[in-house]
Amino acid sequence: MHPLRNRQFRLAQRPTGALVPETWAYVENPMPEPGEEQFLAQVLYISLDPAMRGWLNDAKSYVPPVQLGEVMRAIAVGKVLDSKHPKFVAGDLVVGLFGVQAYALSDGKGVTKVEAGLVPLPTYLSTLGMPGLTAYFGLLDVGKPREGDTVVVSAAAGAVGAVVGQIAKIKGCRVVGLAGGPEKCRYVVDELGFDACIDYKHDDVKKKLRETCPKGVDVYFDNVGGEILDFVLTQITRGARIVICGAISQYNTPNPVGPKNYLSLLVNRASMAGMIVFDYTPRYGEALMQMGAWMAEGKLKSKGDVVKGLETFPDTINKLFKGENFGKLVIEV
Amino acid sequence: MHPLRNRQFRLAQRPTGALVPETWAYVENPMPEPGEEQFLAQVLYISLDPAMRGWLNDAKSYVPPVQLGEVMRAIAVGKVLDSKHPKFVAGDLVVGLFGVQAYALSDGKGVTKVEAGLVPLPTYLSTLGMPGLTAYFGLLDVGKPREGDTVVVSAAAGAVGAVVGQIAKIKGCRVVGLAGGPEKCRYVVDELGFDACIDYKHDDVKKKLRETCPKGVDVYFDNVGGEILDFVLTQITRGARIVICGAISQYNTPNPVGPKNYLSLLVNRASMAGMIVFDYTPRYGEALMQMGAWMAEGKLKSKGDVVKGLETFPDTINKLFKGENFGKLVIEV
Repeated sequence: MHPLRNRQFRLAQRPTGALVPETWAYVENPMPEPGEEQFLAQVLYISLDPAMRGWLNDAKSYVPPVQLGEVMRAIAVGKVLDSKHPKFVAGDLVVGLFGVQAYALSDGKGVTKVEAGLVPLPTYLSTLGMPGLTAYFGLLDVGKPREGDTVVVSAAAGAVGAVVGQIAKIKGCRVVGLAGGPEKCRYVVDELGFDACIDYKHDDVKKKLRETCPKGVDVYFDNVGGEILDFVLTQITRGARIVICGAISQYNTPNPVGPKNYLSLLVNRASMAGMIVFDYTPRYGEALMQMGAWMAEGKLKSKGDVVKGLETFPDTINKLFKGENFGKLVIEV
Repeated sequence: MHPLRNRQFRLAQRPTGALVPETWAYVENPMPEPGEEQFLAQVLYISLDPAMRGWLNDAKSYVPPVQLGEVMRAIAVGKVLDSKHPKFVAGDLVVGLFGVQAYALSDGKGVTKVEAGLVPLPTYLSTLGMPGLTAYFGLLDVGKPREGDTVVVSAAAGAVGAVVGQIAKIKGCRVVGLAGGPEKCRYVVDELGFDACIDYKHDDVKKKLRETCPKGVDVYFDNVGGEILDFVLTQITRGARIVICGAISQYNTPNPVGPKNYLSLLVNRASMAGMIVFDYTPRYGEALMQMGAWMAEGKLKSKGDVVKGLETFPDTINKLFKGENFGKLVIEV
């Protein structure tokens, strides 16, 4: 039925630090055929997210690790080609955990249908997908910003950070981002509307934090960890909230460091809390409706960094850890 | 009027690491006389608390640092000798920030009168004083234990930890302490009624934590920081609460370390929050009434480590940082 072959990246060897070519095995397979209650989808866009690094560690976490020999887990947008599933028909556009491969079988669990034509398809992997939902619930439910608060966001040009900052602006906060390089900083201020952006690769971060946050930091949404988290800890206000969303500076380090200034939490009666977007599934609808409305009003912008070719995966994923992506990183298969 | 001379310890030099004899200057002065709206108190018992180390650092904190040349700040129990203050008369027993000295002048601000005969006077510096109040509000308001939760407390034989664990037992929790040495561990289990106590000086802490907390740690009340905080972070449950009350392992270190396992907060959607007892002053009465009742019922026990002689201060305070005190450390002047 399908003369084409499937192409996949599987986990060949667990990384201890950075992801290397040997981490992955590229495999070609006969095209799969859907069984009862399954559908076959062509994978169109694959989302590359920092969280994927955590899925490779053989440790207890919020999801089981990817097993050796398994297709690398990834969220993707696909198009149903053939279906024996009662709820999906050929032509449906779908988002789900389809993995790093050209074609995927699915039993429909955790799969959502999306509309063509409303927004570019990669948007369902960024602002209207996991990163956007992470930003929405992490900022509003955990960070709890109040009008007039100063909100600081790291990885501000990234898929999560960009949405966090824009929502904080909508909520009437002063918003300061951190990003790498003048081009990203210009984008964050000029296009996303942040009040300021600190270039962590070239600026004196501590000094710039004091200048751009003269009243201190009420909410810090952290995607990076490491030294930047420590700098921000020295500038928090009484009762400040730190949202721990990620720590990309630490994911590839065999010996991660903790925030040595964490006692600032004590002195400032502040808190630091983690969040996982999957806890909010019952409220995804509410968030997507709100973010869709903000996008329509032009208050919430999205930028994609689309790299063409499934075969680029081993290199492309490393752009995340080098800070080379500019906006949401996606592979167009 | 007063033929006696006052004796004081003043801050001579800011410590960079451990407190050394040169940190202090011992001074003898003429006995002070109370002016209008003042009273003179004889200092009977001086409280030695880990927080005092923080007051010596020239850094922005929840109280201003002790200045060079100033009498060392300390909470103490005293007896009014002479008063020109309308609210205090000779003979009153009082608790306040009287400092490390034999006699103190006071304008009455922040001073509380206490009753003689109800409990031994040093109890007003421990269970019915700042450490007890810290334990009460830190555990109940920040840790929020629920019946059946597993609560872990470090420095369990200390003034704060002992109260935390006993209140957690009263609230129906499983309680595991950490203390240094078999004698303290026996005291924590046999006299204070904890379910278990880990001897951090001799046990394999990580292994013992798994054994004594088979369902994981729901609330961790941390007084020590360092390696123990990191061990506990690996054992927390989903939604766990970590109360940062102190970090005695880090106070004398010029290069403090942060909790390298802090990303466990993310994976477990857990939180870590600091607290300062002074924020709860309007509710002290409620807490003292409740703790007084528990003491009367025999549910809340208190142990004091009383060292005689003001002159011992430079050595005695270091018992805290060496873990040598057994229960609340107090100097009997």
